[in-house]
Amino acid sequence: MKNFADRLIEVIQEKGSPIAVGLDPQLQYLPQEIKDKAFKDHGQGFKGASRAILEFNRKVLDVVSPYTGVVKLQVAFYELLGPWGMEAYRKTITYAQKKGLVTIGDIKRGDVEHTALAYAQAHLGEVKLDKITLRGYGTDSVTLNPYLGGDSIAPFLKVAEEKAKGLFILVKTTNPSSRDFQDLSASDGERFFEKVAKKVRQWGRGLIGKNGYSSVGAVVGAQYPRTANRLRRLIPRAFFLVPGYGAQGAGARGLDAYFNADGYGAIISSSRSIIFAYLYPPWKGRGVLQYAPTDWEEAVRQAVVKMHSEVAEAAERAKRRSSSRRL
Amino acid sequence: MKNFADRLIEVIQEKGSPIAVGLDPQLQYLPQEIKDKAFKDHGQGFKGASRAILEFNRKVLDVVSPYTGVVKLQVAFYELLGPWGMEAYRKTITYAQKKGLVTIGDIKRGDVEHTALAYAQAHLGEVKLDKITLRGYGTDSVTLNPYLGGDSIAPFLKVAEEKAKGLFILVKTTNPSSRDFQDLSASDGERFFEKVAKKVRQWGRGLIGKNGYSSVGAVVGAQYPRTANRLRRLIPRAFFLVPGYGAQGAGARGLDAYFNADGYGAIISSSRSIIFAYLYPPWKGRGVLQYAPTDWEEAVRQAVVKMHSEVAEAAERAKRRSSSRRL
Repeated sequence: MKNFADRLIEVIQEKGSPIAVGLDPQLQYLPQEIKDKAFKDHGQGFKGASRAILEFNRKVLDVVSPYTGVVKLQVAFYELLGPWGMEAYRKTITYAQKKGLVTIGDIKRGDVEHTALAYAQAHLGEVKLDKITLRGYGTDSVTLNPYLGGDSIAPFLKVAEEKAKGLFILVKTTNPSSRDFQDLSASDGERFFEKVAKKVRQWGRGLIGKNGYSSVGAVVGAQYPRTANRLRRLIPRAFFLVPGYGAQGAGARGLDAYFNADGYGAIISSSRSIIFAYLYPPWKGRGVLQYAPTDWEEAVRQAVVKMHSEVAEAAERAKRRSSSRRL
Repeated sequence: MKNFADRLIEVIQEKGSPIAVGLDPQLQYLPQEIKDKAFKDHGQGFKGASRAILEFNRKVLDVVSPYTGVVKLQVAFYELLGPWGMEAYRKTITYAQKKGLVTIGDIKRGDVEHTALAYAQAHLGEVKLDKITLRGYGTDSVTLNPYLGGDSIAPFLKVAEEKAKGLFILVKTTNPSSRDFQDLSASDGERFFEKVAKKVRQWGRGLIGKNGYSSVGAVVGAQYPRTANRLRRLIPRAFFLVPGYGAQGAGARGLDAYFNADGYGAIISSSRSIIFAYLYPPWKGRGVLQYAPTDWEEAVRQAVVKMHSEVAEAAERAKRRSSSRRL
């Protein structure tokens, strides 16, 4: 089994850009054609809705897989549709993995040790029943909330080690209220999220791959290049999962701060502005609806191509900046 | 619709003790008879396992409902069994509510605003599909992780207000590593969990019921009576959800610190030491297996009766202590 961070680097090299496409399939934004068919075949309820998002996800994956090596699934939009939604979650993960993609389950779980173990087994590991053992959701990695501290992370570390999986610990999130607690200063002047970052370093020590990166990464929002710069030095071996590019407001400027001098160390993630590109004016546009609903896949393709090149350039800038420094 | 905190007080009065029984159905501890039947009828996989825990839960609820007004479901043990597990989660909630019990979904979710809204709709509210709107899991209240700050709580507050539901925000958790971050001192000397508590007070202001308690409560572990005492004064209107009594080590001593002078303001929760009482030496015993597996329901009954009286006494002590102070 290959170390998770090494696998990340492998797919980044293969696809040529360190991006992740987020599969956050909010039903109201799905192309009507897909919904109509699914609701006709499977009823107007959760089953029909779940089949619609599964069908949508498969089509999105068909379009984006030449450009991205990583997909992130926000589990809330599946959990929203009850057990059927979780079935769509499971099947989307399987479909993505068959295409060779690395999956991130954006679950943000965090609980006391024996409960955390149940979550770890469910999402990354295996589930032991009475007579048989089954694979759980089988994602390659998950996001975790650190509020409960080390023993809430330990079961995930154990499963990550056994199954060569990855973890991304929330450090500094994209939302404005992340300042409420994450930005508080501790008595020694360090900010709370820096305390978390130091623990991320400690938790990740045992899971370093051959490229020098750990399977324990950190979630750091795309809006904070200066913070990213500081965190980059604090936890150089952690892969940053960087949401907030695109619909959440951050552009490509400043993204180079998230990368190390080798051009690695960050995965830039975008969800709505890729998968629902047909509803968004492309990037800096001004409210002009550019795509017909039937062209939604072409809109996805153009959005992911644009993101692919912008993010690849940011990673290149990080390399150039550092080599010019060396001169 | 009755305010959630008022409903809590109503069921506490009705049952005579402020307790919650935790339905954390870990498959390996279930009575073999229940498992054998479910696996025979529904196969050896997730469906059979999920039917086993549903059947177990129903029997537990039949036994405990004369003694407790509240049940807490740890969603991880359902999520562990995939979509079938979530179906057992949903059906357990419905069954408990039919018995007049108030349900707490111990989900510990926390995410950015539009994602938090999906979780809030899924667990407390309604889910709008294309042509119809369905009830989600329909729990009466949930636990939430505060790490992402105010805008991650806001959608839950909105749904809680619309649907008269309750929230319990993690403040100080039972696990030893809760000290990693929750106990850190901020630059002004306050501890991190106190910062969270102050936000809980602020978030709960708009949801105060006729008894003076808010529908926004706090999770405070049973091991910290001194902390509870301080928090009690800091957020007097918050209901404390207090796990850790029983299997997690805390006894009934010190529990009075969690209550206000009116004898309300806390729900003491116990899971494994009630539902799997047949495996535990009763409370202070020393490793003697006292019950045959076929007597598991009687073991549950005796455990919940004991807890009912110990916790009722603690609430009474809080009242007496305060009236003697007044003299």
